[in-house]
Amino acid sequence: MTLPALMNAIVITQPGGPEVLQPAEVGVPVPGPGEVLIRVHAVGVNRPDCLQRAGHYAVPPDASPLPGLEVAGEIVACGEGAPRWRLGDRVVALTHGGGYAEFCRADARHCLPWPAGMNAEEAASLPETCFTVQYNLFTRAGLRAGETCLIHGGSSGIGTTAIQLAKAAGATVITTVGSEEKRVYCLGLGANHAINYREGDWAEGVKELTPKGVNVVLDMVAGPYVAKNLDLLAADGRCALIAFLKGPKAEVNFAPVLTKRLTITGSTLRPQSRDQKAAIAATVEESVWPLITSGRYRTSIYRTFALHEASAAHALMESSAHMGKIMLRVSG
Amino acid sequence: MTLPALMNAIVITQPGGPEVLQPAEVGVPVPGPGEVLIRVHAVGVNRPDCLQRAGHYAVPPDASPLPGLEVAGEIVACGEGAPRWRLGDRVVALTHGGGYAEFCRADARHCLPWPAGMNAEEAASLPETCFTVQYNLFTRAGLRAGETCLIHGGSSGIGTTAIQLAKAAGATVITTVGSEEKRVYCLGLGANHAINYREGDWAEGVKELTPKGVNVVLDMVAGPYVAKNLDLLAADGRCALIAFLKGPKAEVNFAPVLTKRLTITGSTLRPQSRDQKAAIAATVEESVWPLITSGRYRTSIYRTFALHEASAAHALMESSAHMGKIMLRVSG
Repeated sequence: MTLPALMNAIVITQPGGPEVLQPAEVGVPVPGPGEVLIRVHAVGVNRPDCLQRAGHYAVPPDASPLPGLEVAGEIVACGEGAPRWRLGDRVVALTHGGGYAEFCRADARHCLPWPAGMNAEEAASLPETCFTVQYNLFTRAGLRAGETCLIHGGSSGIGTTAIQLAKAAGATVITTVGSEEKRVYCLGLGANHAINYREGDWAEGVKELTPKGVNVVLDMVAGPYVAKNLDLLAADGRCALIAFLKGPKAEVNFAPVLTKRLTITGSTLRPQSRDQKAAIAATVEESVWPLITSGRYRTSIYRTFALHEASAAHALMESSAHMGKIMLRVSG
Repeated sequence: MTLPALMNAIVITQPGGPEVLQPAEVGVPVPGPGEVLIRVHAVGVNRPDCLQRAGHYAVPPDASPLPGLEVAGEIVACGEGAPRWRLGDRVVALTHGGGYAEFCRADARHCLPWPAGMNAEEAASLPETCFTVQYNLFTRAGLRAGETCLIHGGSSGIGTTAIQLAKAAGATVITTVGSEEKRVYCLGLGANHAINYREGDWAEGVKELTPKGVNVVLDMVAGPYVAKNLDLLAADGRCALIAFLKGPKAEVNFAPVLTKRLTITGSTLRPQSRDQKAAIAATVEESVWPLITSGRYRTSIYRTFALHEASAAHALMESSAHMGKIMLRVSG
């Protein structure tokens, strides 16, 4: 296969609303040492893409300026020292931006085998949520079998993944949602309890369910949720923060951190080193990939758009009307 | 030895200032299963004693109402199932209150051998600071050789212990202090750098010393220190909170927790279970006791009062004029 010099992609013409995403022809990237080039079949839409488009997310200097953090596709070129993969291999990959395009570079260690039986958008939907949930819920927050975890935003891409992985690990899952439809949806994914935060104080609801408190909280809301999370945690409880839908600032009383020996932690994937992401990829392949094979983890695609409809995909994500992942189909 | 029915002790007559501490005759406690009775030679004075005296510290229901959380003395009675110790053994013990007295109960597993060559007040000064520092700096915050740690309140009992244990573990130590005299004192204990917070912004001083940030912070100040701690931490940094000299409430921007993958944690000894304290005691015996034997950890006694001078000891602690531990001599 001869690679073209130019490819179709979606560029951010200027910081702004969904309409600033525009189709353009750009150069095909060249894989560096340890990297592969992937012909993209599908790419996931994620909140950081929206933040980047709006100008609220500083793109790392070594990253593609194009949005798109996870893809599925086939390998069409290998840089030096990328021994695991051969041309034609079908993979899913966590990418350093650049996914909204026909071709995308990725670190060879950030690629995992395309799971059998999954179509392109299902495969491409895996990396961001699986890497984020596996790392935060288990590696950082240390969720164990027999524990109870509270997962905010249960119907989001992260939420649907977290519910299933926590259940598969033997935990009891409580989740918060914004509508009755989402509540039913999360229970269908295996959540033990789902609380509609529009129908009263969700924290009171959690307290009624777990008088002793929850062991782990996975929170992408922050703001006023932080103090409530600390209040709800049991002794030796852990809270992992992964986003700030209600802002990063909070007035917090740290007394329960001492008296209950709590741990507040969190992370984002993007600023982590290549080696760190490779370590997470290895954990995901070991822990999550078998759950896909055995059918205990299923990805939830809410809607798939064509690549040139990226604006509409962003508008949908920012409406929060979706349940599960929003995807772009590129080719294949 | 026949045990008396009554003993001299210091009681809290009502919540208030140091003057509410008064000598009184009270009943000699009886050791329960797994407990020993210690004839107290010396007892340490700690901040929680002052909080309890002032009525700001709820005494656990199973604890002695008398203050005093650490003692050195000799074992004069053993309850059922306390096999390690024999009558006459000299021990130091973390106690569940009750140390301001001639006799005190302790869980047999919370006793450690009285180190050779130490007098009573030196031996009694060990449990609170060694248990607190070992557990928070190493077990919770995971300080490792080659890392840099910031220790607030370097001249306090906790601070002097933390400086020495961190240095012995191979860490670089930066500490904050409130006077030039305390600065020199902490450097003498082995701190690599000591910053007088009365001579400018201590956080700027730390930044100049470690452009990449510190790996661990041990903080008993909290309040406005919390946000500065988070700002100063390096990627994957950990902050352990152990007290709130400036209050438990803080306005915090949690953004660096995500971008730098920080961990905020903390603990207090008192509410922990007997088993948890026994586990900490085992770690202290394994990690700290050899440092005492080899002379790499020395306790710092600032002043020793007689038991009936407990009021004066509390007044000194609340003046913060001391450097190192304040002790009460009981007998022996």
